[in-house]
Amino acid sequence: MSLIEKHREEITKAIEALHQRTFYAAFPEHPAPAIYGETADADGQAKFKSYLGKKFDELKQTGATGWAGQEESPYLQEPLKISYPISSVDTLISNALAAFQTWRKVSIDDRGGILLESLDSVKNRFFDIAYATMHTTGQGYMMAFQASGPHAADRALEAIAAAYEELNRFPAKAVWDKPMGKFNVQLNKEWRAVPKGISVVIGCSTFPTWNSVTGIYASLMTGNPVIVKPHPGAILPIAIFVAEIQKVLVENNLDPNICQLAVDTFDKMITKELAEHPSVKLIDFTGNSAFGSYLEALPGKTVFTEKTGVNSVILDSVEDIDKTAANLAFSVNLYSGQMCTAPQNFYIPASGIKTPGGTVSFEEFAEKFVGQINSLVDNPKAGPFVLGAVQSKKTAERVAEAAHLPGKVWLKSRVFENPMFKNARVATPVVVEVDSSKKDVFSKELFGPIALLIKTKSTDESVALAQEMARQHGAISCGAYTTDAQVKEKIADEMALAATPVSFNLTGAIYMNQNAAFSDFHVTGGNPSGNASFTNPDYVNRRFTWVGHREPVKK
Amino acid sequence: MSLIEKHREEITKAIEALHQRTFYAAFPEHPAPAIYGETADADGQAKFKSYLGKKFDELKQTGATGWAGQEESPYLQEPLKISYPISSVDTLISNALAAFQTWRKVSIDDRGGILLESLDSVKNRFFDIAYATMHTTGQGYMMAFQASGPHAADRALEAIAAAYEELNRFPAKAVWDKPMGKFNVQLNKEWRAVPKGISVVIGCSTFPTWNSVTGIYASLMTGNPVIVKPHPGAILPIAIFVAEIQKVLVENNLDPNICQLAVDTFDKMITKELAEHPSVKLIDFTGNSAFGSYLEALPGKTVFTEKTGVNSVILDSVEDIDKTAANLAFSVNLYSGQMCTAPQNFYIPASGIKTPGGTVSFEEFAEKFVGQINSLVDNPKAGPFVLGAVQSKKTAERVAEAAHLPGKVWLKSRVFENPMFKNARVATPVVVEVDSSKKDVFSKELFGPIALLIKTKSTDESVALAQEMARQHGAISCGAYTTDAQVKEKIADEMALAATPVSFNLTGAIYMNQNAAFSDFHVTGGNPSGNASFTNPDYVNRRFTWVGHREPVKK
Repeated sequence: MSLIEKHREEITKAIEALHQRTFYAAFPEHPAPAIYGETADADGQAKFKSYLGKKFDELKQTGATGWAGQEESPYLQEPLKISYPISSVDTLISNALAAFQTWRKVSIDDRGGILLESLDSVKNRFFDIAYATMHTTGQGYMMAFQASGPHAADRALEAIAAAYEELNRFPAKAVWDKPMGKFNVQLNKEWRAVPKGISVVIGCSTFPTWNSVTGIYASLMTGNPVIVKPHPGAILPIAIFVAEIQKVLVENNLDPNICQLAVDTFDKMITKELAEHPSVKLIDFTGNSAFGSYLEALPGKTVFTEKTGVNSVILDSVEDIDKTAANLAFSVNLYSGQMCTAPQNFYIPASGIKTPGGTVSFEEFAEKFVGQINSLVDNPKAGPFVLGAVQSKKTAERVAEAAHLPGKVWLKSRVFENPMFKNARVATPVVVEVDSSKKDVFSKELFGPIALLIKTKSTDESVALAQEMARQHGAISCGAYTTDAQVKEKIADEMALAATPVSFNLTGAIYMNQNAAFSDFHVTGGNPSGNASFTNPDYVNRRFTWVGHREPVKK
Repeated sequence: MSLIEKHREEITKAIEALHQRTFYAAFPEHPAPAIYGETADADGQAKFKSYLGKKFDELKQTGATGWAGQEESPYLQEPLKISYPISSVDTLISNALAAFQTWRKVSIDDRGGILLESLDSVKNRFFDIAYATMHTTGQGYMMAFQASGPHAADRALEAIAAAYEELNRFPAKAVWDKPMGKFNVQLNKEWRAVPKGISVVIGCSTFPTWNSVTGIYASLMTGNPVIVKPHPGAILPIAIFVAEIQKVLVENNLDPNICQLAVDTFDKMITKELAEHPSVKLIDFTGNSAFGSYLEALPGKTVFTEKTGVNSVILDSVEDIDKTAANLAFSVNLYSGQMCTAPQNFYIPASGIKTPGGTVSFEEFAEKFVGQINSLVDNPKAGPFVLGAVQSKKTAERVAEAAHLPGKVWLKSRVFENPMFKNARVATPVVVEVDSSKKDVFSKELFGPIALLIKTKSTDESVALAQEMARQHGAISCGAYTTDAQVKEKIADEMALAATPVSFNLTGAIYMNQNAAFSDFHVTGGNPSGNASFTNPDYVNRRFTWVGHREPVKK
């Protein structure tokens, strides 16, 4: 049985899910022993430990000239001392060009089968990847497992499904038979989905697999060779992913260089050299706006970006103020605010928030919000695991500086003890009150656990500011609380014009930070936070070109 | 009955045709009295004459401050003296911004119904548009009728159909019901296709409707207001189109400024001011590479271009050398080589072209080609009508200069008499032999009736040069003649990598210049000749953004 036949049901279901947008997940998100096996967690932890201080030798790519790696665990604040093969840009490019000639000629079905098989294979590595993710990003265990494992695999599957559908959108052949009056002109026509060329996928330090696998799988599925350039601080999780892809390629007698890992170090970054190489046609990037905008402006490249944004919460009226504050407190605490979807600017009218029991003043809400943050942080069974660790020193510094922003500090950032990692780099959220007139303070992303409570004249001003921030500086998510149908439609319409998805009235176990494959488009592509969206049709069909040839039918 | 119901069958058929890519045309291409009415042609001619020397008063848009127009007939070499309303860029933009607020809220079905109705309405103007096209572009009557009338309307319908499908690709609403173990999280989700904003469509002087209506209809269908900026030398054909769109908008109680005509004059061009305006989000452009590349690099805009290219013909082996020469001679003569799909570089091996009757030498082919060009030019019943007139003085000058290219001139350009227009600006093709080493001569577009016969070492060199030209300088079409299956696949593969469609072995009544709606993608978007393709999914879905909102299901 060919690989695609083995995975036929999987791809069919995934394509269906992409269109229905109801709940769908192919990879179970819970790290339960009943699902993944009794020893899976312990094995994963042991596997992770076995990598420390050694050469990562699972890759099958060719042409390395040395070994290097500078990852450091935010939990241990110690180097992992794992080293990876280092190759020159010239070698990476020439490997990819050679691999392109075989990979582009592999049929759509065979490409699909191989890539789906690689996801099945990665499934056995979810726990290895989870520990690798914890000790590079600082994510808590549960997020590290879910985001880097099953959720990333679901996003990869989604990209494969979307590409599979696009590649099969037009017929491979057709007879074009045009009546001309006394005779017909008959042409045999054929259409080829021609891959654009070398694809470079540039990873970030906080979500090393989730934010990269969509680009990797979308480019591979459409026939392009991929060079994966991880953030030098978060290599291991995606290295395991790439190793599994290479393993399946080799098992199918294909060149492992079809998908290469391009590791670099902080002192010798190769990203620009790679991106500017004339043979590189596709670039996927997650990271800061300055570098993302530089990439977007490179001529002759097709570039997919997720950059930074200023995410807003609009508070107008609520059914339950305590549940609202609790929900938002969780969103701010989750992975210490290091998600691209985490809220930053909370717009609250000076007149307060309307509730069934009367108006809750700005100050009362601030107190409730701070209280909820503290109660989660101080819960030893939840706090340390929800907050995790802070990935970079820069983020920790930014949080410390935030206490000096011009405005009342409602909550200072502090440290807490992680029972498992005494040396973890941690920081609880800082909450600062800012007046709506101080736009320079809140009109930029303050990455990390930093929440600004912005006092506005009215909900109208709140909406206008949220829209302006999204239009000018980008936004990936927006939370809004209102019990008024007219206000709700106004927010929905104004934020839609700023290409920002809105989560309305979330309470309980669902948060504005969360973003589900097959249902939520991640980043819309319509504001400065990024030009691409997981996974809309553009995300895959801009990776290849439809070319049609024709010839008269032989009589 | 709503307009969309009136046109339901039309849109359904068009979407089906887009996917089948077999022959389909909704608007009959022949100007036969039996189809369009006994007096249609005479009426059209009379209507065209009635415009001369007058104000064009059919537009319903608002805010004009004056009247101007500088069109000149290439057939008469006299000004048409038609003047059009002139508006400031500020007025055009503020009109469009106001119109955006109503148009974006018109339902997809209603937008579709209105736009399809406008095409029905334009159908009654095909003969008016044909004469308007002749006397602005210099096209012969038959091409002017077909390209600006039915073929343009088919391309517009294709864009409507593609957009209609994309807009309906994802559900408007869905319930997302995620099992969480002991409970389910249930969210009501909704997705909005949010139009990007003001769309500017910049026309060219040679195909004023065919190259513009796709962008106009694609942007309108996706909810964007459109500002049509025609070439100052070819306004009337598209002015009639826009007038019909505005008429249907007003009949449906909508703002005519949803689609405005923005006329300018050679001495005061407004294109850059329009394109750079921050409120302009979408730009469609047909024209020269320098301006197209400037537009593509404008930050924050979605830009669709058709620029220039160097189209090649690869001659390897043929079944019938005379039929081949005749077919290519027609392609060069057709509209005096002023089509973006016209061939320019003919690659012929020094060893000649293989035929069943033996090898035809480079020189023998050159003689046959020249003979076929002359025989068509000198046929008084065909020549003048196939060649038409030369749109601009610059093109006429370029043809004259081509005689001084470094190489043997096989055929000089000359004038001929058009029996209906004694003053027509005409030029027959110039044919020059160039050695394959003189790349500087043939590695640029020489727009107009200029054919270069390039002597190569082998077909391999021919293919390599054709591919290099397409990759470096762009190509919109390619002709290839070979009876060898392996050579054919090599050409198909190498030119596909350069994103160039190939017409193989055309003889008889079908030419490499021709490009059919619903079947041939026009410009692939994959080489420097342009970044857009009529009409692939990108062409429409990059004009709007998918934005999803969500809210917990009320218990």
